[in-house]
Amino acid sequence: MLTKSTIKFIKSLQEKKYRKQEQCFIVEGGKSVLEVLASDFELRIILGTETFIQDLPTIKDGTELYVVKPDLLSTLGDFKTNDAALAVVQMKKWDTVTIAQDNFTLVLDDIRDPGNLGTIIRTADWYGITQILASEETVDFYNTKVINATKGSFTRVNVFYTDLTEVLAANTLPVYGAFLDGQNVHQTSFPKAGLLIIGNESNGISKELSQKVTHPITIPKLGLAESLNAAIATAILLDNIKR
Amino acid sequence: MLTKSTIKFIKSLQEKKYRKQEQCFIVEGGKSVLEVLASDFELRIILGTETFIQDLPTIKDGTELYVVKPDLLSTLGDFKTNDAALAVVQMKKWDTVTIAQDNFTLVLDDIRDPGNLGTIIRTADWYGITQILASEETVDFYNTKVINATKGSFTRVNVFYTDLTEVLAANTLPVYGAFLDGQNVHQTSFPKAGLLIIGNESNGISKELSQKVTHPITIPKLGLAESLNAAIATAILLDNIKR
Repeated sequence: MLTKSTIKFIKSLQEKKYRKQEQCFIVEGGKSVLEVLASDFELRIILGTETFIQDLPTIKDGTELYVVKPDLLSTLGDFKTNDAALAVVQMKKWDTVTIAQDNFTLVLDDIRDPGNLGTIIRTADWYGITQILASEETVDFYNTKVINATKGSFTRVNVFYTDLTEVLAANTLPVYGAFLDGQNVHQTSFPKAGLLIIGNESNGISKELSQKVTHPITIPKLGLAESLNAAIATAILLDNIKR
Repeated sequence: MLTKSTIKFIKSLQEKKYRKQEQCFIVEGGKSVLEVLASDFELRIILGTETFIQDLPTIKDGTELYVVKPDLLSTLGDFKTNDAALAVVQMKKWDTVTIAQDNFTLVLDDIRDPGNLGTIIRTADWYGITQILASEETVDFYNTKVINATKGSFTRVNVFYTDLTEVLAANTLPVYGAFLDGQNVHQTSFPKAGLLIIGNESNGISKELSQKVTHPITIPKLGLAESLNAAIATAILLDNIKR
């Protein structure tokens, strides 16, 4: 039986403090819960509607399973409506950071908007990038809004929160970053491996990290918008890097 | 003096019904309010903090101006904090739709997320696209979340809500749309003018509109994400079209 204390526990995971303490987070929606089940993440609790539970693949011993009404699912999560499932998932213990030498790595300098981070992870997954380094001030990967915006890509892309200055000091790969006076990305040929720094939504790339950029690049502007959204810029840059 | 009834009026503009009835909408934040002042939109009301009002350029007769505390600004709008300004702006009467023959036009087939629409408008503005056609079911242009996500680009990009099937029936320009089995955009050369259809977030381009696509295209996928966010796909396609 689903107890009041379990419900309270799930609700508490909306806050970073409790996610950290309990080392778990919420995944919403039938599609994402199935994606987590197919990944190497461990599930602690699954709440599902009768229809969802009927079609569920075999579940590991130790995962609590409850049949619930859709109303409860939307109360517990961030979705307006959810007629399928919600899961509590164990955080993974990620290895220490080593920069991939055969692919690009994204470096996020204080991305604050959960939707932006989630969309960046989803886009990275599309372009075959599996490693992201993020400053300690970047919004929490396990934030429900971030997880939802990844549309399941959080199971395939690892985000390491770390001191970026330290990591960049030890790096020998070329470092790209978007600036107004950089080289036109349409005329740049990119190597197989490197780092791409994405700046904060309001302030761009910090002074400290700017000094580490070896290749300043620019997305040509043909109109009048002052800037591009951070996730949009990431996508355009990745498409140019990977073409 | 700022009356209770004016405050109630401004609050009511969060709802589409009242925006339509009053033919006006809310613009939040100092930067956006200044951008509206510099545009050909007419302002009905400006609420600003003392600091903001001090530096304000000359304002047309007939615009109501009130000095307020930041608290009130965040109560009336969608921003968590707003220490500058908020304005009530008159909707423009837009001309009837004629498809530009010398540039690309975006065609939005039921974009439902306000953040996506706002970001699409901002990205269109970056790439010099000033005309967007949207299905009647597309989220309202004047929704506060849409206006905020455009970061001021709503003053430069026109969105026409219309029956897309009708407009496309009369069109003679090439029509592009993203499908899984289309031509690789990295290997496509685009003309100067055309239409680009962007599909709904969950269902993609509708069957009816799919039939109007003369040039199916594809953004090559190198990783495992099932799809891209609609605004992200728009940006990547525009960058390929305009390169």
